[in-house]
Amino acid sequence: MKYPNSGKVYEKPNVSASNRGMSLEEDINKTNRYYLNEDIAVIYKKPTPVTIVKVDYPKRSAAKIVEAYFKLPSTTDYNGIYMGKYIDFEAKECESATSFPFSSIHAHQIQHLRDVIKHGAIAFIILRMTHYDEDFLIKANDFIQFYDAGKRKSLPYRWITENGFLIPKTYTKPCDYLLIVKNVFEL
Amino acid sequence: MKYPNSGKVYEKPNVSASNRGMSLEEDINKTNRYYLNEDIAVIYKKPTPVTIVKVDYPKRSAAKIVEAYFKLPSTTDYNGIYMGKYIDFEAKECESATSFPFSSIHAHQIQHLRDVIKHGAIAFIILRMTHYDEDFLIKANDFIQFYDAGKRKSLPYRWITENGFLIPKTYTKPCDYLLIVKNVFEL
Repeated sequence: MKYPNSGKVYEKPNVSASNRGMSLEEDINKTNRYYLNEDIAVIYKKPTPVTIVKVDYPKRSAAKIVEAYFKLPSTTDYNGIYMGKYIDFEAKECESATSFPFSSIHAHQIQHLRDVIKHGAIAFIILRMTHYDEDFLIKANDFIQFYDAGKRKSLPYRWITENGFLIPKTYTKPCDYLLIVKNVFEL
Repeated sequence: MKYPNSGKVYEKPNVSASNRGMSLEEDINKTNRYYLNEDIAVIYKKPTPVTIVKVDYPKRSAAKIVEAYFKLPSTTDYNGIYMGKYIDFEAKECESATSFPFSSIHAHQIQHLRDVIKHGAIAFIILRMTHYDEDFLIKANDFIQFYDAGKRKSLPYRWITENGFLIPKTYTKPCDYLLIVKNVFEL
């Protein structure tokens, strides 16, 4: 779960029966392609931010980056447009069965959610509780309110089930979060 | 101007007197920081997309990417939210004094502009004509209309001055494009 090892390239495969080893990122990307192809929404994952230090330019072949480092993201991973609205969210997988630790979300990302909410964004977190094979949509406002209360260092699973919205999965839309967005944000 | 050498890291410094060697990307990023700090808008450049092939994990130091390649972007470089609206744009520098070649914009990026327009985005191109030290905002709709007409392989400078909107520069906002956005898109 921790940066910089959270990208799908380096993470251990998630081999639950129902999702056939697909990571949350892969499921969201597949769903986003469906949304794009069906003219439902235009939402993309941002590239992983890296600081490029050294590039080789071999003759007759592509430029090769030979020294680069992972950089902390200043924003959330996903944004785009749906029904004319600016959409912004972060997606996280959580292996613990009991709670989602705040340490898994960077302070910059929480600040970014505050910033976009102020300007009218539809902002949320998609949280996959891998132990239960459940994906929840949590409104960024609800998350921030709990976070700011400062009483806990994690979101308890019970809080997640009571305040989050279970996201349906289908083969073509393995994480159909916009169905929830439409209802929860009353679009 | 051509990918993958268009990133600010590799480009020749632009040394006109008025902008003191700042690239368009640096000017937009600085302006975006001003917009963010002043609570005007939340707009970021997306990280440069790279395909990471090999990462070393040295003991007691940060993960080091030792093999990676530049990837063609599937979207434009900038997006965010302003006055509750989804904003999406591409920024390009043009060294030619006579025209801006379409080959400088990837087909994927033009398709992306079409996609977001369909969903209600405020979409445009910021074009720096370095020879004149002028920055223009061109509505993506106007650009696409000219592009689709298929009569030319570039935007003539004259067309740019007649259809584009000159973007004001100040020290704190070296590319104050939202001033133009507000008027041109009647927000």
